[in-house]
Amino acid sequence: MQRIDNKKPQELAEAVVNKMLAQDWFSQWLGIEKEIVAPGHVRLRLRVRREMLNGFAIAHGGIAFALADSALAFAANGYGHVSLTLESSLSYLKPAREGDVMIAETEEISHTKRTAIYLVHIQHEDGTRIGLFKGVLHKTEQAHFPDMQN
Amino acid sequence: MQRIDNKKPQELAEAVVNKMLAQDWFSQWLGIEKEIVAPGHVRLRLRVRREMLNGFAIAHGGIAFALADSALAFAANGYGHVSLTLESSLSYLKPAREGDVMIAETEEISHTKRTAIYLVHIQHEDGTRIGLFKGVLHKTEQAHFPDMQN
Amino acid sequence: MQRIDNKKPQELAEAVVNKMLAQDWFSQWLGIEKEIVAPGHVRLRLRVRREMLNGFAIAHGGIAFALADSALAFAANGYGHVSLTLESSLSYLKPAREGDVMIAETEEISHTKRTAIYLVHIQHEDGTRIGLFKGVLHKTEQAHFPDMQN
Amino acid sequence: MQRIDNKKPQELAEAVVNKMLAQDWFSQWLGIEKEIVAPGHVRLRLRVRREMLNGFAIAHGGIAFALADSALAFAANGYGHVSLTLESSLSYLKPAREGDVMIAETEEISHTKRTAIYLVHIQHEDGTRIGLFKGVLHKTEQAHFPDMQN
Repeated sequence: MQRIDNKKPQELAEAVVNKMLAQDWFSQWLGIEKEIVAPGHVRLRLRVRREMLNGFAIAHGGIAFALADSALAFAANGYGHVSLTLESSLSYLKPAREGDVMIAETEEISHTKRTAIYLVHIQHEDGTRIGLFKGVLHKTEQAHFPDMQN
Repeated sequence: MQRIDNKKPQELAEAVVNKMLAQDWFSQWLGIEKEIVAPGHVRLRLRVRREMLNGFAIAHGGIAFALADSALAFAANGYGHVSLTLESSLSYLKPAREGDVMIAETEEISHTKRTAIYLVHIQHEDGTRIGLFKGVLHKTEQAHFPDMQN
Repeated sequence: MQRIDNKKPQELAEAVVNKMLAQDWFSQWLGIEKEIVAPGHVRLRLRVRREMLNGFAIAHGGIAFALADSALAFAANGYGHVSLTLESSLSYLKPAREGDVMIAETEEISHTKRTAIYLVHIQHEDGTRIGLFKGVLHKTEQAHFPDMQN
Repeated sequence: MQRIDNKKPQELAEAVVNKMLAQDWFSQWLGIEKEIVAPGHVRLRLRVRREMLNGFAIAHGGIAFALADSALAFAANGYGHVSLTLESSLSYLKPAREGDVMIAETEEISHTKRTAIYLVHIQHEDGTRIGLFKGVLHKTEQAHFPDMQN
């Protein structure tokens, strides 16, 4: 938990996510918007467009996965070290349709020196679950901003 | 295994995949091309474009997942009944970069009346593994083409 | 949510779990004790014995998995229909050692006519997480107690 | 691939597995027998006993998981460094009954400096699949036998 008098971790998380998102052409194509960005905690949203639908006229599984995957990457990298996803899983709960807003919020389950595990809850605006995503990451020793890192 | 003198299952698989792909705007955006389409067996490919990259300049995890997810859906639905993915997981092995071709081929692990399990191998053209995907589906009683179904 | 004036679902859940556990020799070997049994919600516990340890002197991964797997089966079958696990995953968070109590509590994520998805939280008595388990089930049409089922 | 003129990796793998198994009381209770032990490749077997059954009179999911989990641990640790499982998943394919032999064989999917990914194929003696297991490990820098390690 970050204290009110210590802006460093929060500043670092925002700097990392801004840097990652600025070069993340696919997240930009998805129209991902940031709602929360903090160390280990991110909430993102997107609006489902026609070109995101599959043959059943619902959002393609790759859309929910990509949104959750971006949230996961931003949450874990926000601590400042390059963190790479090893394994992710997605449980499908309810479909999203054209025009729907899809929200993905991370829940940090575990966070050690070299590894991290997150759930990502993917929901409609009314809280109905779209999917449940779980991701396992490997944290490298490489800092995103060596100057900002303690 | 489909016999040489029985074109029905093969025709049904092709009809289902063509119908699904014709309305699958996201698979179209991905530029997915069919290499193999048969009942329970599909191989697809796409070429990684700049707009598919993430902030590490490699293909976003959502791209490999979406390609594998489409392959899974086409393979399972190719038997003729509407089949819905319950759960998928993706292990990340090697990155793909702009211009690379990404190939996803299904391997049927299990296929019962109501459920199916597949691996999807995601690889570079030279056979290097990009990812390993596993999907679990629920098969409904609804036929894609009631007239063609035995 | 079961109402105070409707004991049927609760009675059915208890009858199903008692029947399952009476013939579940492995859960008995594990020393599993029931703390909560309700439709879709179960909490179980066991005490880690020496013969449950692996070569690192911590509880074997199979012990946490088996406890969570039993909790999952009891929670889903407690609605009254035979429900079979299709796929489960376990994330390892902290070890448990000889003498430790291990508690597994289900969280129902989704529950439809034919499928169900649960998280199972595996923890020490003080709430420290040991593992996070996710399970996907297929619900059959076969009733455990046809006479009790509505 | 280990060469015929280089016994060191093979000797190291056997030494590690023997050390781990000698203290692995649960694998011993399971009656696990080694069929293959090599760096990154292990095949184990056990015979299903009555006390391994669940309430459906088939082997408890925890038994197949534990067998595969031991195979995974032995395969990865066999390279000589302490390797810890982060995440495992098990797909259930066919049941095993009392008296059946259950065989688990690892397939190495990926093996880098700090991480490894394996499939474990769980089968009957006739090759019928019982389950498909996938595991992701973190490899630490700690050697099992510092003197034997290159």
